[in-house]
Amino acid sequence: MNFSVEDVNRLVAEGFPTASENGYRCEEFGEGWALARWSYRADGLRPGGYVPGPTLFGLADLALWFACFTVLGLEPMAVTSDLSIAFLRPAIGGDVLARAELLKVGRSRLYGQIDLWVDGTPDRLVAQAHGSYVPPADRNRSGSR
Amino acid sequence: MNFSVEDVNRLVAEGFPTASENGYRCEEFGEGWALARWSYRADGLRPGGYVPGPTLFGLADLALWFACFTVLGLEPMAVTSDLSIAFLRPAIGGDVLARAELLKVGRSRLYGQIDLWVDGTPDRLVAQAHGSYVPPADRNRSGSR
Amino acid sequence: MNFSVEDVNRLVAEGFPTASENGYRCEEFGEGWALARWSYRADGLRPGGYVPGPTLFGLADLALWFACFTVLGLEPMAVTSDLSIAFLRPAIGGDVLARAELLKVGRSRLYGQIDLWVDGTPDRLVAQAHGSYVPPADRNRSGSR
Amino acid sequence: MNFSVEDVNRLVAEGFPTASENGYRCEEFGEGWALARWSYRADGLRPGGYVPGPTLFGLADLALWFACFTVLGLEPMAVTSDLSIAFLRPAIGGDVLARAELLKVGRSRLYGQIDLWVDGTPDRLVAQAHGSYVPPADRNRSGSR
Repeated sequence: MNFSVEDVNRLVAEGFPTASENGYRCEEFGEGWALARWSYRADGLRPGGYVPGPTLFGLADLALWFACFTVLGLEPMAVTSDLSIAFLRPAIGGDVLARAELLKVGRSRLYGQIDLWVDGTPDRLVAQAHGSYVPPADRNRSGSR
Repeated sequence: MNFSVEDVNRLVAEGFPTASENGYRCEEFGEGWALARWSYRADGLRPGGYVPGPTLFGLADLALWFACFTVLGLEPMAVTSDLSIAFLRPAIGGDVLARAELLKVGRSRLYGQIDLWVDGTPDRLVAQAHGSYVPPADRNRSGSR
Repeated sequence: MNFSVEDVNRLVAEGFPTASENGYRCEEFGEGWALARWSYRADGLRPGGYVPGPTLFGLADLALWFACFTVLGLEPMAVTSDLSIAFLRPAIGGDVLARAELLKVGRSRLYGQIDLWVDGTPDRLVAQAHGSYVPPADRNRSGSR
Repeated sequence: MNFSVEDVNRLVAEGFPTASENGYRCEEFGEGWALARWSYRADGLRPGGYVPGPTLFGLADLALWFACFTVLGLEPMAVTSDLSIAFLRPAIGGDVLARAELLKVGRSRLYGQIDLWVDGTPDRLVAQAHGSYVPPADRNRSGSR
Protein backbone atom coordinates (compact mmCIF):
# COMPACT_ATOMS: atom_id res chain seq x y z
CA MET A 1 0.00 0.00 0.00
CA ASN A 2 1.22 3.42 -0.87
CA PHE A 3 -0.06 5.14 2.25
CA SER A 4 0.75 5.02 5.92
CA VAL A 5 -1.11 4.95 9.21
CA GLU A 6 -0.33 8.66 9.47
CA ASP A 7 -1.99 9.27 6.10
CA VAL A 8 -5.13 7.54 7.32
CA ASN A 9 -5.20 9.57 10.50
CA ARG A 10 -4.61 12.78 8.58
CA LEU A 11 -7.58 11.93 6.35
CA VAL A 12 -9.74 11.37 9.44
CA ALA A 13 -8.56 14.57 11.09
CA GLU A 14 -9.32 16.60 7.98
CA GLY A 15 -12.50 14.90 6.82
CA PHE A 16 -14.05 14.06 10.19
CA PRO A 17 -12.45 16.31 12.78
CA THR A 18 -14.97 15.28 15.42
CA ALA A 19 -13.84 11.66 15.11
CA SER A 20 -10.25 12.65 15.82
CA GLU A 21 -11.32 14.92 18.64
CA ASN A 22 -13.39 12.11 20.12
CA GLY A 23 -10.33 9.91 20.38
CA TYR A 24 -10.62 7.60 17.38
CA ARG A 25 -7.61 6.72 15.29
CA CYS A 26 -6.09 4.11 13.03
CA GLU A 27 -3.44 2.07 14.77
CA GLU A 28 -2.20 -0.41 12.18
CA PHE A 29 -3.27 -2.11 8.98
CA GLY A 30 -2.36 -4.70 6.40
CA GLU A 31 -3.95 -6.14 3.31
CA GLY A 32 -7.60 -6.74 4.14
CA TRP A 33 -7.50 -5.75 7.79
CA ALA A 34 -7.10 -2.77 10.09
CA LEU A 35 -6.87 -2.01 13.78
CA ALA A 36 -8.54 1.09 15.24
CA ARG A 37 -8.34 2.56 18.71
CA TRP A 38 -10.68 4.63 20.83
CA SER A 39 -8.77 6.39 23.60
CA TYR A 40 -10.49 6.25 26.95
CA ARG A 41 -12.05 9.42 28.28
CA ALA A 42 -14.22 9.64 31.36
CA ASP A 43 -16.76 12.08 29.94
CA GLY A 44 -19.59 10.66 27.92
CA LEU A 45 -19.69 7.29 29.67
CA ARG A 46 -22.95 5.64 30.60
CA PRO A 47 -23.90 5.16 34.25
CA GLY A 48 -21.69 2.41 35.65
CA GLY A 49 -18.74 3.71 33.65
CA TYR A 50 -19.68 1.77 30.53
CA VAL A 51 -18.41 2.92 27.15
CA PRO A 52 -21.67 3.68 25.28
CA GLY A 53 -22.84 1.44 22.48
CA PRO A 54 -22.72 4.20 19.83
CA THR A 55 -19.07 4.84 20.70
CA LEU A 56 -18.30 1.16 20.05
CA PHE A 57 -20.40 1.23 16.89
CA GLY A 58 -18.46 4.26 15.66
CA LEU A 59 -15.18 2.50 16.34
CA ALA A 60 -16.31 -0.65 14.51
CA ASP A 61 -17.48 1.43 11.57
CA LEU A 62 -14.14 3.26 11.37
CA ALA A 63 -12.11 0.07 11.62
CA LEU A 64 -14.03 -1.45 8.73
CA TRP A 65 -13.58 1.74 6.69
CA PHE A 66 -9.83 1.59 7.30
CA ALA A 67 -9.78 -2.07 6.22
CA CYS A 68 -11.56 -1.05 3.00
CA PHE A 69 -8.78 1.49 2.33
CA THR A 70 -6.32 -1.38 2.18
CA VAL A 71 -8.01 -2.74 -0.92
CA LEU A 72 -9.62 0.38 -2.42
CA GLY A 73 -6.93 2.92 -1.67
CA LEU A 74 -7.54 6.00 0.49
CA GLU A 75 -11.15 6.44 -0.51
CA PRO A 76 -13.14 8.65 1.83
CA MET A 77 -16.37 8.19 -0.08
CA ALA A 78 -16.73 4.49 0.54
CA VAL A 79 -19.82 4.35 2.75
CA THR A 80 -21.37 1.91 5.14
CA SER A 81 -24.27 -0.02 3.70
CA ASP A 82 -25.24 -1.90 6.84
CA LEU A 83 -23.63 -2.75 10.14
CA SER A 84 -24.81 -4.92 12.99
CA ILE A 85 -23.27 -5.10 16.41
CA ALA A 86 -23.75 -7.48 19.32
CA PHE A 87 -22.70 -6.24 22.74
CA LEU A 88 -21.17 -9.11 24.66
CA ARG A 89 -19.68 -7.68 27.84
CA PRO A 90 -19.41 -4.24 29.47
CA ALA A 91 -16.57 -2.15 28.04
CA ILE A 92 -15.06 -0.55 31.12
CA GLY A 93 -11.96 1.26 32.19
CA GLY A 94 -9.65 1.50 29.22
CA ASP A 95 -9.01 2.15 25.57
CA VAL A 96 -11.03 0.02 23.18
CA LEU A 97 -9.48 -1.67 20.17
CA ALA A 98 -11.33 -2.87 17.07
CA ARG A 99 -9.86 -5.19 14.49
CA ALA A 100 -11.70 -5.34 11.18
CA GLU A 101 -11.11 -8.09 8.67
CA LEU A 102 -12.56 -8.22 5.17
CA LEU A 103 -14.11 -11.58 4.37
CA LYS A 104 -15.27 -10.71 0.88
CA VAL A 105 -14.17 -8.04 -1.54
CA GLY A 106 -16.67 -7.67 -4.36
CA ARG A 107 -17.02 -4.88 -6.86
CA SER A 108 -20.20 -3.64 -5.30
CA ARG A 109 -19.78 -4.69 -1.70
CA LEU A 110 -17.01 -5.27 0.82
CA TYR A 111 -18.07 -7.41 3.73
CA GLY A 112 -16.17 -7.68 6.97
CA GLN A 113 -16.18 -8.66 10.59
CA ILE A 114 -14.99 -6.53 13.49
CA ASP A 115 -13.90 -7.76 16.93
CA LEU A 116 -13.78 -5.24 19.78
CA TRP A 117 -12.03 -5.55 23.14
CA VAL A 118 -10.65 -3.42 25.95
CA ASP A 119 -6.92 -2.95 25.56
CA GLY A 120 -5.14 -5.67 27.48
CA THR A 121 -7.88 -8.32 27.34
CA PRO A 122 -8.14 -9.43 23.70
CA ASP A 123 -9.61 -12.78 24.72
CA ARG A 124 -12.73 -11.14 26.15
CA LEU A 125 -14.56 -9.45 23.30
CA VAL A 126 -16.80 -6.61 24.43
CA ALA A 127 -18.60 -6.57 21.10
CA GLN A 128 -18.60 -8.08 17.66
CA ALA A 129 -19.82 -6.38 14.53
CA HIS A 130 -20.34 -7.25 10.87
CA GLY A 131 -21.17 -5.14 7.94
CA SER A 132 -20.77 -3.99 4.40
CA TYR A 133 -19.19 -1.03 2.71
CA VAL A 134 -20.06 0.11 -0.79
CA PRO A 135 -17.32 1.59 -2.97
CA PRO A 136 -18.08 5.03 -4.42
CA ALA A 137 -18.63 3.96 -8.03
CA ASP A 138 -21.27 1.57 -6.99
CA ARG A 139 -22.79 3.98 -4.55
CA ASN A 140 -23.36 6.40 -7.39
CA ARG A 141 -25.00 3.70 -9.40
CA SER A 142 -27.25 2.51 -6.63
CA GLY A 143 -28.04 5.68 -4.87
CA SER A 144 -27.48 3.98 -1.52
CA ARG A 145 -25.92 6.03 1.17
CA MET B 1 -47.34 6.11 32.09
CA ASN B 2 -46.40 8.13 35.12
CA PHE B 3 -43.65 10.12 33.43
CA SER B 4 -43.50 12.76 30.73
CA VAL B 5 -41.34 13.56 27.71
CA GLU B 6 -39.64 16.15 29.93
CA ASP B 7 -38.80 13.46 32.48
CA VAL B 8 -37.16 11.38 29.77
CA ASN B 9 -35.13 14.30 28.53
CA ARG B 10 -34.09 15.22 32.08
CA LEU B 11 -32.87 11.64 32.57
CA VAL B 12 -30.85 11.89 29.35
CA ALA B 13 -29.43 15.29 30.29
CA GLU B 14 -28.33 14.05 33.71
CA GLY B 15 -27.20 10.53 32.84
CA PHE B 16 -25.74 11.17 29.38
CA PRO B 17 -25.03 14.87 29.11
CA THR B 18 -23.10 14.39 25.87
CA ALA B 19 -26.22 12.96 24.21
CA SER B 20 -28.18 16.08 25.11
CA GLU B 21 -25.32 18.31 24.06
CA ASN B 22 -25.10 16.47 20.76
CA GLY B 23 -28.68 17.28 19.94
CA TYR B 24 -30.57 14.10 20.81
CA ARG B 25 -33.89 14.20 22.60
CA CYS B 26 -37.15 12.39 23.12
CA GLU B 27 -40.00 13.94 21.20
CA GLU B 28 -43.04 11.84 21.99
CA PHE B 29 -44.00 8.36 23.19
CA GLY B 30 -46.86 6.00 23.83
CA GLU B 31 -47.24 2.43 24.96
CA GLY B 32 -44.63 0.41 23.12
CA TRP B 33 -43.24 3.18 20.92
CA ALA B 34 -41.21 6.38 21.04
CA LEU B 35 -40.07 9.13 18.70
CA ALA B 36 -36.59 10.64 19.05
CA ARG B 37 -35.04 13.61 17.30
CA TRP B 38 -31.50 14.56 16.38
CA SER B 39 -31.24 18.29 15.76
CA TYR B 40 -29.23 19.17 12.70
CA ARG B 41 -25.83 20.72 13.21
CA ALA B 42 -23.32 21.38 10.47
CA ASP B 43 -20.25 20.31 12.40
CA GLY B 44 -19.41 16.64 12.46
CA LEU B 45 -20.95 15.83 9.08
CA ARG B 46 -19.25 13.54 6.61
CA PRO B 47 -17.93 14.88 3.31
CA GLY B 48 -20.94 15.60 1.12
CA GLY B 49 -22.88 16.86 4.11
CA TYR B 50 -24.07 13.40 5.12
CA VAL B 51 -25.14 12.78 8.68
CA PRO B 52 -22.65 10.12 9.81
CA GLY B 53 -23.73 6.53 10.36
CA PRO B 54 -22.80 6.50 14.05
CA THR B 55 -25.01 9.55 14.62
CA LEU B 56 -27.94 7.68 13.11
CA PHE B 57 -27.06 4.55 15.07
CA GLY B 58 -27.00 6.59 18.28
CA LEU B 59 -30.40 8.05 17.48
CA ALA B 60 -31.87 4.60 16.75
CA ASP B 61 -30.41 3.24 19.96
CA LEU B 62 -31.90 6.09 22.00
CA ALA B 63 -35.32 5.79 20.37
CA LEU B 64 -35.44 2.08 21.23
CA TRP B 65 -34.34 2.85 24.79
CA PHE B 66 -37.16 5.39 25.12
CA ALA B 67 -39.64 2.82 23.78
CA CYS B 68 -38.43 0.38 26.45
CA PHE B 69 -39.16 2.98 29.12
CA THR B 70 -42.81 2.87 28.11
CA VAL B 71 -43.07 -0.74 29.28
CA LEU B 72 -40.32 -0.95 31.92
CA GLY B 73 -40.65 2.48 33.49
CA LEU B 74 -37.84 5.03 33.51
CA GLU B 75 -35.07 2.49 33.73
CA PRO B 76 -31.68 3.88 32.77
CA MET B 77 -29.92 0.54 33.19
CA ALA B 78 -31.74 -1.28 30.42
CA VAL B 79 -28.95 -1.88 27.93
CA THR B 80 -28.66 -2.69 24.27
CA SER B 81 -27.95 -6.32 23.53
CA ASP B 82 -27.60 -6.02 19.77
CA LEU B 83 -28.57 -3.53 17.12
CA SER B 84 -28.30 -3.69 13.36
CA ILE B 85 -28.78 -0.81 10.98
CA ALA B 86 -29.16 -0.62 7.22
CA PHE B 87 -28.41 2.71 5.58
CA LEU B 88 -30.85 3.25 2.75
CA ARG B 89 -30.38 6.82 1.53
CA PRO B 90 -28.16 9.76 2.41
CA ALA B 91 -29.39 11.72 5.41
CA ILE B 92 -28.86 15.32 4.35
CA GLY B 93 -29.89 18.77 5.35
CA GLY B 94 -32.19 18.54 8.33
CA ASP B 95 -33.15 17.07 11.65
CA VAL B 96 -33.45 13.32 11.74
CA LEU B 97 -36.36 11.55 13.39
CA ALA B 98 -36.39 7.95 14.61
CA ARG B 99 -39.52 6.06 15.56
CA ALA B 100 -38.98 2.90 17.57
CA GLU B 101 -41.67 0.30 18.01
CA LEU B 102 -41.47 -2.74 20.27
CA LEU B 103 -42.51 -5.94 18.51
CA LYS B 104 -41.92 -8.27 21.43
CA VAL B 105 -41.71 -7.62 25.13
CA GLY B 106 -40.25 -10.61 26.95
CA ARG B 107 -38.90 -10.83 30.46
CA SER B 108 -35.34 -11.15 29.25
CA ARG B 109 -35.48 -9.31 25.94
CA LEU B 110 -37.33 -6.44 24.32
CA TYR B 111 -37.13 -6.48 20.55
CA GLY B 112 -37.96 -3.54 18.37
CA GLN B 113 -37.71 -1.91 14.99
CA ILE B 114 -36.64 1.67 14.33
CA ASP B 115 -37.42 3.73 11.21
CA LEU B 116 -35.31 6.85 10.55
CA TRP B 117 -36.05 9.73 8.20
CA VAL B 118 -35.15 13.36 7.65
CA ASP B 119 -37.83 15.63 9.12
CA GLY B 120 -40.36 16.40 6.42
CA THR B 121 -39.90 13.27 4.31
CA PRO B 122 -41.24 10.34 6.39
CA ASP B 123 -41.86 8.30 3.25
CA ARG B 124 -38.18 8.15 2.39
CA LEU B 125 -36.43 6.23 5.16
CA VAL B 126 -32.75 7.06 5.44
CA ALA B 127 -32.13 4.01 7.62
CA GLN B 128 -33.85 1.17 9.35
CA ALA B 129 -32.63 -0.54 12.48
CA HIS B 130 -33.61 -3.50 14.64
CA GLY B 131 -32.39 -4.65 17.95
CA SER B 132 -32.84 -5.90 21.45
CA TYR B 133 -32.66 -4.38 24.89
CA VAL B 134 -32.13 -6.40 28.04
CA PRO B 135 -33.84 -5.25 31.25
CA PRO B 136 -31.52 -4.74 34.22
CA ALA B 137 -32.57 -7.79 36.25
CA ASP B 138 -31.75 -10.04 33.39
CA ARG B 139 -28.58 -8.20 32.62
CA ASN B 140 -27.33 -8.97 36.08
CA ARG B 141 -28.18 -12.60 35.63
CA SER B 142 -26.55 -12.91 32.25
CA GLY B 143 -23.60 -10.66 32.59
CA SER B 144 -24.29 -9.24 29.17
CA ARG B 145 -23.61 -5.59 28.66
CA MET C 1 -46.91 -6.07 -13.74
CA ASN C 2 -47.16 -8.41 -16.66
CA PHE C 3 -47.19 -11.61 -14.64
CA SER C 4 -49.55 -13.27 -12.23
CA VAL C 5 -49.37 -15.10 -8.93
CA GLU C 6 -49.71 -18.30 -10.95
CA ASP C 7 -46.66 -17.32 -13.02
CA VAL C 8 -44.63 -16.87 -9.84
CA ASN C 9 -45.73 -20.23 -8.50
CA ARG C 10 -44.97 -21.91 -11.80
CA LEU C 11 -41.46 -20.44 -11.71
CA VAL C 12 -41.00 -21.79 -8.18
CA ALA C 13 -42.36 -25.21 -9.10
CA GLU C 14 -40.05 -25.47 -12.10
CA GLY C 15 -36.93 -23.87 -10.67
CA PHE C 16 -37.16 -25.06 -7.07
CA PRO C 17 -39.45 -28.06 -7.01
CA THR C 18 -38.52 -28.83 -3.41
CA ALA C 19 -39.86 -25.44 -2.30
CA SER C 20 -43.21 -26.18 -3.87
CA GLU C 21 -43.21 -29.70 -2.47
CA ASN C 22 -42.42 -28.32 0.97
CA GLY C 23 -45.51 -26.16 0.92
CA TYR C 24 -44.22 -22.71 -0.02
CA ARG C 25 -46.08 -20.51 -2.44
CA CYS C 26 -46.77 -16.95 -3.46
CA GLU C 27 -50.17 -15.75 -2.33
CA GLU C 28 -50.43 -12.17 -3.54
CA PHE C 29 -48.27 -9.23 -4.59
CA GLY C 30 -48.26 -5.60 -5.58
CA GLU C 31 -45.66 -3.01 -6.44
CA GLY C 32 -42.89 -3.39 -3.90
CA TRP C 33 -44.47 -6.06 -1.72
CA ALA C 34 -45.44 -9.73 -1.72
CA LEU C 35 -47.19 -12.20 0.53
CA ALA C 36 -45.96 -15.80 0.78
CA ARG C 37 -47.50 -18.79 2.53
CA TRP C 38 -46.10 -21.94 4.08
CA SER C 39 -48.78 -24.59 4.39
CA TYR C 40 -48.76 -26.38 7.71
CA ARG C 41 -47.56 -29.94 7.79
CA ALA C 42 -46.98 -31.99 10.91
CA ASP C 43 -43.80 -33.67 9.76
CA GLY C 44 -40.56 -31.82 10.24
CA LEU C 45 -41.68 -29.82 13.27
CA ARG C 46 -39.42 -29.29 16.24
CA PRO C 47 -40.23 -30.86 19.61
CA GLY C 48 -43.18 -28.95 21.06
CA GLY C 49 -44.74 -28.66 17.61
CA TYR C 50 -42.77 -25.55 16.69
CA VAL C 51 -42.25 -24.66 13.07
CA PRO C 52 -38.44 -24.80 12.73
CA GLY C 53 -36.44 -21.62 12.31
CA PRO C 54 -35.01 -22.61 8.91
CA THR C 55 -38.57 -23.13 7.61
CA LEU C 56 -39.43 -19.58 8.65
CA PHE C 57 -36.16 -18.28 7.21
CA GLY C 58 -36.93 -20.01 3.90
CA LEU C 59 -40.37 -18.42 3.83
CA ALA C 60 -38.97 -14.96 4.57
CA ASP C 61 -36.36 -15.39 1.86
CA LEU C 62 -38.99 -16.43 -0.70
CA ALA C 63 -41.32 -13.57 0.21
CA LEU C 64 -38.53 -11.06 -0.33
CA TRP C 65 -37.62 -12.71 -3.62
CA PHE C 66 -41.23 -12.38 -4.77
CA ALA C 67 -41.26 -8.71 -3.74
CA CYS C 68 -38.12 -8.20 -5.85
CA PHE C 69 -39.95 -9.68 -8.85
CA THR C 70 -42.44 -6.82 -8.62
CA VAL C 71 -39.74 -4.31 -9.48
CA LEU C 72 -37.23 -6.43 -11.45
CA GLY C 73 -39.64 -8.63 -13.36
CA LEU C 74 -39.66 -12.42 -13.05
CA GLU C 75 -35.96 -12.76 -12.43
CA PRO C 76 -34.95 -16.08 -10.92
CA MET C 77 -31.29 -15.14 -10.68
CA ALA C 78 -31.71 -12.33 -8.18
CA VAL C 79 -29.98 -13.73 -5.12
CA THR C 80 -29.98 -13.06 -1.41
CA SER C 81 -27.04 -11.06 -0.20
CA ASP C 82 -27.82 -11.16 3.49
CA LEU C 83 -30.81 -11.89 5.65
CA SER C 84 -31.30 -11.64 9.37
CA ILE C 85 -34.22 -13.02 11.33
CA ALA C 86 -35.39 -12.52 14.89
CA PHE C 87 -37.68 -15.17 16.33
CA LEU C 88 -40.25 -13.49 18.53
CA ARG C 89 -42.80 -16.13 19.47
CA PRO C 90 -43.32 -19.85 18.84
CA ALA C 91 -44.93 -20.55 15.46
CA ILE C 92 -47.44 -23.28 16.26
CA GLY C 93 -50.42 -24.93 14.77
CA GLY C 94 -51.13 -23.36 11.42
CA ASP C 95 -49.99 -22.00 8.10
CA VAL C 96 -47.41 -19.24 8.31
CA LEU C 97 -47.67 -16.05 6.24
CA ALA C 98 -44.80 -13.72 5.38
CA ARG C 99 -45.27 -10.23 3.99
CA ALA C 100 -42.18 -8.68 2.43
CA GLU C 101 -41.95 -4.99 1.69
CA LEU C 102 -39.13 -3.29 -0.19
CA LEU C 103 -37.83 -0.22 1.60
CA LYS C 104 -35.13 0.65 -0.90
CA VAL C 105 -34.69 -0.26 -4.53
CA GLY C 106 -31.18 0.51 -5.70
CA ARG C 107 -29.42 -0.65 -8.81
CA SER C 108 -27.11 -2.91 -6.86
CA ARG C 109 -29.23 -3.76 -3.84
CA LEU C 110 -32.87 -4.18 -2.92
CA TYR C 111 -33.50 -3.96 0.79
CA GLY C 112 -36.64 -5.13 2.48
CA GLN C 113 -38.37 -6.12 5.66
CA ILE C 114 -40.44 -9.25 6.20
CA ASP C 115 -43.09 -9.80 8.88
CA LEU C 116 -44.14 -13.38 9.66
CA TRP C 117 -47.23 -14.59 11.54
CA VAL C 118 -49.42 -17.65 11.92
CA ASP C 119 -52.49 -17.37 9.73
CA GLY C 120 -55.27 -15.78 11.74
CA THR C 121 -53.13 -13.81 14.20
CA PRO C 122 -51.43 -11.06 12.16
CA ASP C 123 -50.99 -8.92 15.28
CA ARG C 124 -48.67 -11.43 16.90
CA LEU C 125 -45.56 -11.67 14.75
CA VAL C 126 -43.69 -14.95 15.15
CA ALA C 127 -40.62 -13.53 13.46
CA GLN C 128 -39.30 -10.51 11.67
CA ALA C 129 -36.60 -10.53 9.04
CA HIS C 130 -34.63 -8.00 7.00
CA GLY C 131 -32.31 -8.43 4.14
CA SER C 132 -30.95 -7.57 0.75
CA TYR C 133 -31.23 -9.05 -2.69
CA VAL C 134 -28.75 -8.37 -5.47
CA PRO C 135 -30.01 -8.18 -9.06
CA PRO C 136 -28.27 -10.49 -11.52
CA ALA C 137 -26.32 -7.84 -13.42
CA ASP C 138 -24.75 -6.65 -10.27
CA ARG C 139 -24.14 -10.14 -9.01
CA ASN C 140 -22.06 -10.83 -12.09
CA ARG C 141 -20.09 -7.70 -11.49
CA SER C 142 -19.46 -8.34 -7.85
CA GLY C 143 -19.10 -12.05 -7.78
CA SER C 144 -21.28 -12.19 -4.71
CA ARG C 145 -23.60 -15.12 -4.37
CA MET D 1 -18.40 -33.58 27.96
CA ASN D 2 -20.29 -36.73 28.75
CA PHE D 3 -21.71 -37.23 25.31
CA SER D 4 -20.33 -38.08 21.90
CA VAL D 5 -20.81 -36.96 18.31
CA GLU D 6 -22.94 -40.07 17.88
CA ASP D 7 -25.18 -38.96 20.75
CA VAL D 8 -25.70 -35.61 19.07
CA ASN D 9 -26.57 -37.23 15.77
CA ARG D 10 -28.92 -39.66 17.48
CA LEU D 11 -30.71 -36.70 19.09
CA VAL D 12 -31.04 -35.03 15.69
CA ALA D 13 -32.28 -38.22 14.04
CA GLU D 14 -34.91 -38.75 16.72
CA GLY D 15 -35.99 -35.16 17.32
CA PHE D 16 -35.67 -33.78 13.80
CA PRO D 17 -35.72 -36.72 11.42
CA THR D 18 -36.05 -34.42 8.41
CA ALA D 19 -32.73 -32.77 9.29
CA SER D 20 -30.98 -36.12 9.26
CA GLU D 21 -32.76 -37.15 6.08
CA ASN D 22 -31.72 -33.87 4.46
CA GLY D 23 -28.08 -34.62 5.05
CA TYR D 24 -27.22 -32.58 8.13
CA ARG D 25 -25.04 -33.97 10.88
CA CYS D 26 -22.63 -33.11 13.62
CA GLU D 27 -19.05 -33.83 12.69
CA GLU D 28 -16.97 -32.83 15.69
CA PHE D 29 -17.11 -30.58 18.74
CA GLY D 30 -15.14 -29.25 21.69
CA GLU D 31 -15.79 -26.82 24.49
CA GLY D 32 -17.56 -23.84 22.99
CA TRP D 33 -17.45 -24.92 19.35
CA ALA D 34 -18.88 -27.45 16.92
CA LEU D 35 -18.50 -28.46 13.30
CA ALA D 36 -21.55 -29.49 11.25
CA ARG D 37 -21.77 -30.95 7.76
CA TRP D 38 -24.36 -30.85 5.03
CA SER D 39 -23.83 -33.68 2.57
CA TYR D 40 -24.15 -32.64 -1.02
CA ARG D 41 -27.19 -33.76 -2.94
CA ALA D 42 -28.11 -32.65 -6.42
CA ASP D 43 -31.84 -32.30 -5.81
CA GLY D 44 -33.07 -29.08 -4.30
CA LEU D 45 -30.31 -26.88 -5.71
CA ARG D 46 -31.02 -23.46 -7.14
CA PRO D 47 -30.54 -22.78 -10.84
CA GLY D 48 -26.79 -22.66 -11.49
CA GLY D 49 -26.25 -25.51 -9.05
CA TYR D 50 -26.10 -23.23 -6.02
CA VAL D 51 -26.82 -24.61 -2.60
CA PRO D 52 -29.87 -22.60 -1.53
CA GLY D 53 -29.62 -19.95 1.17
CA PRO D 54 -32.09 -21.66 3.51
CA THR D 55 -29.99 -24.83 3.37
CA LEU D 56 -26.95 -22.85 4.50
CA PHE D 57 -29.02 -21.06 7.13
CA GLY D 58 -30.25 -24.41 8.46
CA LEU D 59 -26.67 -25.69 8.66
CA ALA D 60 -25.49 -22.57 10.49
CA ASP D 61 -28.38 -22.84 12.91
CA LEU D 62 -27.60 -26.50 13.64
CA ALA D 63 -23.89 -25.85 14.11
CA LEU D 64 -24.64 -23.15 16.67
CA TRP D 65 -27.10 -25.46 18.44
CA PHE D 66 -24.42 -28.14 18.65
CA ALA D 67 -21.95 -25.60 20.06
CA CYS D 68 -24.53 -24.70 22.73
CA PHE D 69 -24.72 -28.37 23.72
CA THR D 70 -21.04 -28.23 24.65
CA VAL D 71 -21.81 -25.78 27.44
CA LEU D 72 -25.45 -26.57 28.28
CA GLY D 73 -25.40 -30.33 27.87
CA LEU D 74 -27.57 -32.16 25.36
CA GLU D 75 -30.45 -29.74 25.56
CA PRO D 76 -32.85 -30.02 22.64
CA MET D 77 -35.03 -27.16 23.87
CA ALA D 78 -32.42 -24.43 23.54
CA VAL D 79 -33.88 -22.29 20.77
CA THR D 80 -32.62 -19.73 18.32
CA SER D 81 -33.39 -16.17 19.29
CA ASP D 82 -31.99 -14.48 16.20
CA LEU D 83 -29.64 -15.40 13.41
CA SER D 84 -28.23 -13.32 10.59
CA ILE D 85 -26.37 -14.64 7.59
CA ALA D 86 -24.34 -12.96 4.88
CA PHE D 87 -23.85 -14.86 1.65
CA LEU D 88 -20.35 -14.22 0.36
CA ARG D 89 -19.77 -16.58 -2.53
CA PRO D 90 -21.76 -19.25 -4.38
CA ALA D 91 -21.73 -22.60 -2.59
CA ILE D 92 -21.27 -25.09 -5.42
CA GLY D 93 -20.34 -28.65 -5.97
CA GLY D 94 -19.66 -30.26 -2.64
CA ASP D 95 -20.47 -30.81 1.00
CA VAL D 96 -20.73 -27.67 3.09
CA LEU D 97 -19.11 -27.38 6.51
CA ALA D 98 -20.09 -24.94 9.24
CA ARG D 99 -17.99 -24.19 12.28
CA ALA D 100 -19.77 -22.45 15.12
CA GLU D 101 -17.91 -20.80 17.95
CA LEU D 102 -19.49 -19.31 21.06
CA LEU D 103 -18.21 -15.82 21.84
CA LYS D 104 -20.31 -15.23 24.91
CA VAL D 105 -22.06 -17.63 27.24
CA GLY D 106 -24.54 -15.81 29.45
CA ARG D 107 -27.31 -17.22 31.56
CA SER D 108 -29.97 -15.88 29.26
CA ARG D 109 -28.17 -15.79 25.92
CA LEU D 110 -25.44 -17.67 24.10
CA TYR D 111 -23.95 -15.70 21.23
CA GLY D 112 -21.85 -17.22 18.51
CA GLN D 113 -20.38 -16.88 15.08
CA ILE D 114 -20.56 -19.46 12.30
CA ASP D 115 -18.23 -19.73 9.30
CA LEU D 116 -19.40 -21.79 6.31
CA TRP D 117 -17.33 -23.18 3.44
CA VAL D 118 -17.41 -25.89 0.80
CA ASP D 119 -15.40 -28.90 1.93
CA GLY D 120 -11.85 -28.52 0.69
CA THR D 121 -11.73 -24.72 0.49
CA PRO D 122 -11.84 -23.44 4.09
CA ASP D 123 -10.18 -20.20 3.08
CA ARG D 124 -13.07 -19.16 0.89
CA LEU D 125 -16.10 -18.69 3.11
CA VAL D 126 -19.39 -19.08 1.28
CA ALA D 127 -21.28 -17.49 4.13
CA GLN D 128 -20.89 -16.16 7.62
CA ALA D 129 -23.60 -16.12 10.26
CA HIS D 130 -24.05 -14.81 13.80
CA GLY D 131 -26.76 -15.35 16.29
CA SER D 132 -28.07 -16.10 19.72
CA TYR D 133 -29.55 -19.11 21.41
CA VAL D 134 -31.69 -18.91 24.52
CA PRO D 135 -31.44 -21.73 27.08
CA PRO D 136 -34.74 -23.38 28.01
CA ALA D 137 -35.07 -21.94 31.53
CA ASP D 138 -34.81 -18.46 30.18
CA ARG D 139 -37.06 -19.21 27.28
CA ASN D 140 -39.79 -20.18 29.70
CA ARG D 141 -39.28 -16.96 31.58
CA SER D 142 -39.31 -14.76 28.55
CA GLY D 143 -41.82 -16.48 26.35
CA SER D 144 -39.49 -16.03 23.40
CA ARG D 145 -39.46 -18.77 20.85
